[in-house]
Amino acid sequence: MVASAPLRIGVAGLGTVGAGVVKLLEDNRALLTQRAGRRIEIAAVSARRRAADRGVDLSGFAWQDDPLAIADDPSIDVVVELMGGEAGPALALVERALANGKSVVTANKALLAHHGSRLGQIARQRGVGLCFEASVAGGIPVIKALREGLVGNRISRISGILNGTCNYILSTMRETGRAFDDVLADAQKLGYAEADPTLDIDGWDAAHKLAVLAGIAFGTPVDFERVYVEGIRHISPLDIEYAEELGFRIKLLGTAVRTERGIEQRVHPTMVQATEAIAQVDGVFNAVVIEGDHVGRVVLQGRGAGAGPTASAVVADLVDLATGRLSPAFVEAAEGGIGPVSMSEHDGPSYVRLMVRDQPGVIADIAAELRNERVSMEAMIQRRHHPGGAVPVVLTTHPSKEAALSRALERIGALESVLEPPRMIRIEL
Amino acid sequence: MVASAPLRIGVAGLGTVGAGVVKLLEDNRALLTQRAGRRIEIAAVSARRRAADRGVDLSGFAWQDDPLAIADDPSIDVVVELMGGEAGPALALVERALANGKSVVTANKALLAHHGSRLGQIARQRGVGLCFEASVAGGIPVIKALREGLVGNRISRISGILNGTCNYILSTMRETGRAFDDVLADAQKLGYAEADPTLDIDGWDAAHKLAVLAGIAFGTPVDFERVYVEGIRHISPLDIEYAEELGFRIKLLGTAVRTERGIEQRVHPTMVQATEAIAQVDGVFNAVVIEGDHVGRVVLQGRGAGAGPTASAVVADLVDLATGRLSPAFVEAAEGGIGPVSMSEHDGPSYVRLMVRDQPGVIADIAAELRNERVSMEAMIQRRHHPGGAVPVVLTTHPSKEAALSRALERIGALESVLEPPRMIRIEL
Repeated sequence: MVASAPLRIGVAGLGTVGAGVVKLLEDNRALLTQRAGRRIEIAAVSARRRAADRGVDLSGFAWQDDPLAIADDPSIDVVVELMGGEAGPALALVERALANGKSVVTANKALLAHHGSRLGQIARQRGVGLCFEASVAGGIPVIKALREGLVGNRISRISGILNGTCNYILSTMRETGRAFDDVLADAQKLGYAEADPTLDIDGWDAAHKLAVLAGIAFGTPVDFERVYVEGIRHISPLDIEYAEELGFRIKLLGTAVRTERGIEQRVHPTMVQATEAIAQVDGVFNAVVIEGDHVGRVVLQGRGAGAGPTASAVVADLVDLATGRLSPAFVEAAEGGIGPVSMSEHDGPSYVRLMVRDQPGVIADIAAELRNERVSMEAMIQRRHHPGGAVPVVLTTHPSKEAALSRALERIGALESVLEPPRMIRIEL
Repeated sequence: MVASAPLRIGVAGLGTVGAGVVKLLEDNRALLTQRAGRRIEIAAVSARRRAADRGVDLSGFAWQDDPLAIADDPSIDVVVELMGGEAGPALALVERALANGKSVVTANKALLAHHGSRLGQIARQRGVGLCFEASVAGGIPVIKALREGLVGNRISRISGILNGTCNYILSTMRETGRAFDDVLADAQKLGYAEADPTLDIDGWDAAHKLAVLAGIAFGTPVDFERVYVEGIRHISPLDIEYAEELGFRIKLLGTAVRTERGIEQRVHPTMVQATEAIAQVDGVFNAVVIEGDHVGRVVLQGRGAGAGPTASAVVADLVDLATGRLSPAFVEAAEGGIGPVSMSEHDGPSYVRLMVRDQPGVIADIAAELRNERVSMEAMIQRRHHPGGAVPVVLTTHPSKEAALSRALERIGALESVLEPPRMIRIEL
């Protein structure tokens, strides 16, 4: 017997995730009531089109054409925002709900990346929850792990495969040897990539998620504008082959790391050692590595998208709200002197691939440019010979300043014997 | 500025973990106060020997020779039990603390495996917390993930590497080809195994942890007596070699799984596919795989023991208590018809290794015994020949009832041409 009043929720947005939430709440209704100590009841739903087959029965819920009507309904405790978009109706809905003293659950990383700190402050002032477990890494409870499970730790680094589309494309390129465009086209046919894939493959989606994670990990304001973003379009089968030879895998990683100079936030293709746990995470899976001063390294992996996993995260937030377990969205921790630092300050090893004319003196010219910028080479591979023709030259560097390497590569790219713009992929050890 | 009163705690037990908790609270004091919204203050400590160098300064805390004095101190909010032991002083302390209306944080898996459900009920009746994140998998926040992060899911299976000592021994055996006794002796010298290693290598420690996880995952009473337990003493380098050849790794897994017949809880050496994430987890690391109906498979890994990781988990519980985030220890979920099921009902594939006399007819005799019990062979390896001498024969079976395979192996072991008791290792696909 459950005596408490039900938690009444309104769901705005009935795409894959919205329908998944309705389905999960129905499938596991009795279990959830036991675990939450009260019923979680959908009071109203809203979406752009009322007539659509979503595979779930909506007849028991009030329908609202205007999502704001959910935020204004005094009988509703929690607004679940699953419409998406970094501003527009989603932002208006969340602001209205918080202003009306309702808790909000959202899966909207773009919204949080741009407005997260401000919305979190409003929620705190109103004494309500702003919950967004579903916004990062789908069903993996990474926000709860970071904010609560590892709360005792000063976090030094958080790094992850945060976009399943990119991971699927890179995994498939590695397994098949096929080119990027080719694999992307297939991923689009299979529904793993959008018709307009920009948000995913150019790294923006991962950057939204990284900004949210960094805000929690370091207690700094969520600051999407300061995330360095580079996507995977320029990764070639040749780079994947060389990575393999050097003992690496190429992953699109989002990395936020505390350095002596400040907090780096960066999303870019990254070579990671093939033996690392994160290197083994293939296909549409996500994984996050968290490093804390007492716990060491914790790795979480699972499905980063899809109806079921994302609904699992939304419902976890709902149960937290139903049981009164409230965590502040972001705790601004005055750790002192840990502002953001620009990418030009990044200091790390890199992989560089050049296409050069196979003639005497080329390597000496390249080496000289690197030396002039005090970039020191760790290894070089030049195996194929084709006198007078074009051959790839691959080198790895010891840790060097991003700005110095960039200058060197610019001058190397301008050498007469270097036939294509240099390709650089950062290495994470 | 933090206005709330501090959370006052008493720490009973100042071994590695106790000292680690004192150190963590000191190291990250300012950060924790911000994150918890109030100070977490050690009011008193207790241990068997007062004079011991623990590497931490205890001069600021009241000393109690009798841990019960901590439970009786009205100024203390939370008792942290880090003494260990399934009964005796630890049980007395936890019971007294709960009876006095104090919350308890403990890392004591043996205590929980034997008394967890009863203690959880007392805590619930008193409206206080019984928190034990540190009792399973050290710093990995697996209990929070299971109970809160994946709360929306009906759990079908939870499986993990729960004992770092066994994982270290098995990993080292695989990497070096050395025998169990040899590697154990080294592990003892290195401090990775106790002088009396029984609790670890015979599977009891993993079984304690599994019983706790199963209670949370399935909403069934914590039932250590029903856990099937088998350790790693009998694993030979030959088995590890054959596992490799068959594409498997041998891990000591604790597995709790919902079957049509009920809940299986079992700890035993297990062959897992070498490509699985859990197969890659080597050395003293722990990993847990959770399968939920909506989230799919989630894998968590990290350090399963040691001062820092365990203290990280203890402090996470303390911050939950400081902020009023209370979760019931165990929710008994009436899912109906999911009582425990005995090991003889287990139905799965197995690996069997026999040492047989290399003579005509032996394989036919073995095959006949298996057929009589309707155990069907999947593969057989007999490569070395030594006419008249002893050779290993390895076979894998299709899924078969444990009881049937046991009967067959008993009769096979009694065959005149079978020279050693058959070795069986269960396979998990």
